[in-house]
Amino acid sequence: MLALYLRTPTLCTQEPSLYVSKSPCIAYDRLVLSEVRINATSIRDWPRHPHRGLLVDTSRHFVTVGGLLRILDAMSYSKLNVLHWHIVDDQSFPYYSERFPNLSDMGAYHWSAVYRPGDVQRVVHAARDRGIRVLPEFDVPGHTRSWGVAYPSLLTKCYVGNSMNGLGPMDPTNRQVYDMLKDLFAELRQVFPEKYFHVGGDEVDLSCWASNPQIEDYMLKNNISSTNQLHALFMNTTIPLLSAGTIPVVWQEVFDERVPLPNGTLVQVWISNSRDYLRNVLSSGHRVVYSTCWYLDHLKSGGDWGDFYACDPREVLRDSSLENDIIGGEACMWGEVVDDTNLATRVWPRAAAVAERLWSAAGGAAAAARHRLEEHACRLRRRGIPAQPPNGPGFCLV
Amino acid sequence: MLALYLRTPTLCTQEPSLYVSKSPCIAYDRLVLSEVRINATSIRDWPRHPHRGLLVDTSRHFVTVGGLLRILDAMSYSKLNVLHWHIVDDQSFPYYSERFPNLSDMGAYHWSAVYRPGDVQRVVHAARDRGIRVLPEFDVPGHTRSWGVAYPSLLTKCYVGNSMNGLGPMDPTNRQVYDMLKDLFAELRQVFPEKYFHVGGDEVDLSCWASNPQIEDYMLKNNISSTNQLHALFMNTTIPLLSAGTIPVVWQEVFDERVPLPNGTLVQVWISNSRDYLRNVLSSGHRVVYSTCWYLDHLKSGGDWGDFYACDPREVLRDSSLENDIIGGEACMWGEVVDDTNLATRVWPRAAAVAERLWSAAGGAAAAARHRLEEHACRLRRRGIPAQPPNGPGFCLV
Repeated sequence: MLALYLRTPTLCTQEPSLYVSKSPCIAYDRLVLSEVRINATSIRDWPRHPHRGLLVDTSRHFVTVGGLLRILDAMSYSKLNVLHWHIVDDQSFPYYSERFPNLSDMGAYHWSAVYRPGDVQRVVHAARDRGIRVLPEFDVPGHTRSWGVAYPSLLTKCYVGNSMNGLGPMDPTNRQVYDMLKDLFAELRQVFPEKYFHVGGDEVDLSCWASNPQIEDYMLKNNISSTNQLHALFMNTTIPLLSAGTIPVVWQEVFDERVPLPNGTLVQVWISNSRDYLRNVLSSGHRVVYSTCWYLDHLKSGGDWGDFYACDPREVLRDSSLENDIIGGEACMWGEVVDDTNLATRVWPRAAAVAERLWSAAGGAAAAARHRLEEHACRLRRRGIPAQPPNGPGFCLV
Repeated sequence: MLALYLRTPTLCTQEPSLYVSKSPCIAYDRLVLSEVRINATSIRDWPRHPHRGLLVDTSRHFVTVGGLLRILDAMSYSKLNVLHWHIVDDQSFPYYSERFPNLSDMGAYHWSAVYRPGDVQRVVHAARDRGIRVLPEFDVPGHTRSWGVAYPSLLTKCYVGNSMNGLGPMDPTNRQVYDMLKDLFAELRQVFPEKYFHVGGDEVDLSCWASNPQIEDYMLKNNISSTNQLHALFMNTTIPLLSAGTIPVVWQEVFDERVPLPNGTLVQVWISNSRDYLRNVLSSGHRVVYSTCWYLDHLKSGGDWGDFYACDPREVLRDSSLENDIIGGEACMWGEVVDDTNLATRVWPRAAAVAERLWSAAGGAAAAARHRLEEHACRLRRRGIPAQPPNGPGFCLV
């Protein structure tokens, strides 16, 4: 058995896991908050998947550092261990870069809606103290409109006929784009201690590239026959810019467009749910982080955690030789209609259903999970997390 | 013009409306919080519908008095003037009755989840001070399981074949039911100053009545040929038990089952949305409170206020001789998955879209309403109401 130490109301092991360098702390207040007092105990428990994540989007709406710390608390209470910080996107650029301060000076919603270096450190350190890794995402080349507020030349001019019609994805033919990304990545390597780095690569508006006469010329000259190939070229140029020792994480489109990906790359699957697709990614030597069925922004009257719980990517695969390369999954809280007011209530306890699916053995009756989730929602509330009622009528004594 | 007085940040008129006995106070911080300072002004504005309500269900989940007061604040900021307090239901009986204390002693979730007389008075007085009426609902004969915890004999024994299978709606053949309701109504008349009283009448499990041998006997002896008639008999016996001067409010089923209703009865329409149905209710001499399209418990990914805003019962009717008898509507926040944690965020600003539909002239472009709602959500947040983002990405400076 592992050596244990007890810190009310969490129980931590001394031994770090292979995947997480920090010792995992597990909420165990049933032991310490119950009437029974325990002198010593031994617990055998381990996670089925090493990557148990929650994506939080801080671009569509800004989330305060306090809001993020509350999310981290609840993640640790729910045995989630990766905060996927989708920090910037089209709508705003709230990350303050020391190297490129104009990005947030001009691209954030407001000067008060910016993560300064101290803010990022608070989040990173709070996560570390809870056994949670912070996986930063700077999504390129799409979802980058906010970068263009300060640096419009980074983005592609889209055309309708002969007239310009706004800015699209980053311009894959512009050398400055790659120079900037290289410098930014170097900075981010210092700021985020995580060896994984998410470069996005999803939902690129290829039609904008196709509409631009200069890009058309470039494609002709370089014998590039499709804009998909251009996307592949972009990712293929960008990924090597990551600092040494960094392992890339990409959305599935990057794999779909046949970009040669370095060994160990994590492919985040968010569209596909078929056995064939997963086999295809895994047999190409990549590992999968699964999110297709765990989008927390999809709402259903009366609740939907049962759908989240029923979804099991390793069961979809049903192929023992590959299934361990599905290293886990992430519940995704896209921020279009979520900010500090409703973030915590919308995430909790729904993400805890995903957390149990990722931690526990396959199967597990939903009826029993229902009771656990009811209890867990109330436990979260007692600890200050405003978890919404998961199961219909009831009462939680806070 | 009406005489005005100004109390930051609300503007109140001295003249009570015909329908609301309190002077309406209207949020007008655009005048008083803006850079422009105003010495005197004159405003012409009036509501299209006199009954602009929000139903809050405190039985499926208990809502604290603090939670209700916050709802009242936001209602006044949004020009809603009726809190329909669906106070008890199957799941719990949180109302403390001086005459029948066992109802909540045994039927509430917990002793701490009970509205004592002082609690009810706080809500009623806070509402009055904000120009809001409190319309209490004690739903009978269905939705009464919690009454049966203390008084099981009030409820009908349901049968499957020859064996009893739990308790159903109130027993319409039991004289004690009516004796108790009479006493309870007398108490409630003192507690709630409102002249309207909602007796429910929805979703009665008629099959339980049909399964009970004693009720079968009763129907035979009294020449009652259907359980619908039995429901009519129940409502027809119950409504006259209301204290003198009380005007009943009923869910539409009571009208549908042809219960003779006293003049002035409000029929709350929640299932039907057809022109013919509304004409039918109105031409029978009743008035309509409309809710069919304004159920806040129905969720839609990305938001749904546009659907609420597009719905206009008087436009459905398109019949000027009757349309004024649609006196208004109510947004309904059923409490199955809502408690203090997520009540305010789920209601606001969605209910404000209903409020504008009920206050303002017919029509109104959704695109313009979109801006007003964004601004209003931010205004609510500045005043301490955690209104969720209504329109997708954005930023509210609190």
